[in-house]
Amino acid sequence: MTPRLSLWGITGIPEISPNDDLVALIAEAITTQSNADPDLALQSGDILVVTSKIVSKAEGMQVPAAEREQAIAADTVRVVAERVHPGGTFRIVETRQGLVMAAAGIDMSNVPEGTALRLPADPDASARALCTGLRERLGVDIGIIVTDTIGRAWRIGQTDMAIGAAGVQLTDDLRGANDANGRPLHVTQAVIVDEIAGAADLVKGKTTGIPVAVVRGLDRYVTDLDAPGARTLSRTGDDDMFRFGSAEAYRLGYEAAMAEMNSRKKQKQD
Amino acid sequence: MTPRLSLWGITGIPEISPNDDLVALIAEAITTQSNADPDLALQSGDILVVTSKIVSKAEGMQVPAAEREQAIAADTVRVVAERVHPGGTFRIVETRQGLVMAAAGIDMSNVPEGTALRLPADPDASARALCTGLRERLGVDIGIIVTDTIGRAWRIGQTDMAIGAAGVQLTDDLRGANDANGRPLHVTQAVIVDEIAGAADLVKGKTTGIPVAVVRGLDRYVTDLDAPGARTLSRTGDDDMFRFGSAEAYRLGYEAAMAEMNSRKKQKQD
Repeated sequence: MTPRLSLWGITGIPEISPNDDLVALIAEAITTQSNADPDLALQSGDILVVTSKIVSKAEGMQVPAAEREQAIAADTVRVVAERVHPGGTFRIVETRQGLVMAAAGIDMSNVPEGTALRLPADPDASARALCTGLRERLGVDIGIIVTDTIGRAWRIGQTDMAIGAAGVQLTDDLRGANDANGRPLHVTQAVIVDEIAGAADLVKGKTTGIPVAVVRGLDRYVTDLDAPGARTLSRTGDDDMFRFGSAEAYRLGYEAAMAEMNSRKKQKQD
Repeated sequence: MTPRLSLWGITGIPEISPNDDLVALIAEAITTQSNADPDLALQSGDILVVTSKIVSKAEGMQVPAAEREQAIAADTVRVVAERVHPGGTFRIVETRQGLVMAAAGIDMSNVPEGTALRLPADPDASARALCTGLRERLGVDIGIIVTDTIGRAWRIGQTDMAIGAAGVQLTDDLRGANDANGRPLHVTQAVIVDEIAGAADLVKGKTTGIPVAVVRGLDRYVTDLDAPGARTLSRTGDDDMFRFGSAEAYRLGYEAAMAEMNSRKKQKQD
């Protein structure tokens, strides 16, 4: 049997403002679209991929553009790396959502003039609310992934990744499974929600005003609402080998050696 | 209009051995599949996503499992970070293909017992050969992406990414473009070949023996054969802020300070 997947964008979602009922607006757009094409009616096992930008807008995460720097500082729990350039300082930080990204994910594209937009405070909670609301309203067991556009170390550009998830299995954990030859698979834990987030970006697009996409054909990954959220995908603890940028870690090492030598010198003098 | 995308796996590709004609084997599998279901006949604008493993196998990149460590060393141009654990040393390196990945991408899953498999020596050249061969044989202008499974900094698990590409545009470069509000988009260069690679993994899977998938609906990204290859996606030069792991960079800084102090001490003594 040929494994198949189909994806499409949800059209007709209006510009979102604080306190808009996102569940109602998404459900209406889906209903309008499926009235025109019954194939596009949601089914249990479909996964809805929602751009975090509209979640942030509905949750009132707008700040005046002039307060962008303060907002970045407020959403930063740790500076990972920074580089000064003629236009200012480029900072990669760990955000309060547990993500490592440039400028704490605060964005000035696709937002009204004069405003900047923070990430949802708790994207997994946002995903759960959307999942509960849309399951109830549409009567189908769907999964929800909330996405943002994120850069990667060692690679140019960005891809969309999952920053929130509900009702969907995060990874296909193949540690302990066997390959097609019946031999153990090494180290493989495919992060399918990130792969789904990237796939959905291919039909959403950033210039077309389509903030939600449907992925059909991954029923096997749709779960109960009590599955772990996307926050558990972050690796920012002891097993993070890139806790600081190279320049930052070098400076820490340099300063530690200097402090050590000075303290030895001082002990000799005493 | 609703943007749509469909993906499916190519079934019936046999286990690949050195010197197998991959173009012929993929073309035959596609023909068999499309005889059963005419919708699955390739069309111009389709993108074929090929797991690097079968490319490596056809190109004879197998090495005896006992020589795995030597093969890793041979394919490493630079150690980025390493960590010793009870089972050995885990190394993240820059490979001769310009990729930053664990163990130089040398894999022991889905390969015959007693062997390990190196990455294709030049995945862009492999992609070009497949693209030229399949375009000729099937008479349709398709794109080719060669993928591997790669870990990311700050995030658990792996996703599939593009390590080779031919006949396909790598990124949707939105720098300078406008958002849906007509305002300039900031810093966005969507790496669509990585998003396509991840999407295709969702229908290929690592345990099912389906090494090739088709993506339909992205005609706009299919190009001439002279488009840049995936190697240009690597960021391993001056603008790489994570050239070394934190521990490695810290040690370099520490040693630099010690050397500096010792040289000052020596100057005083002279």
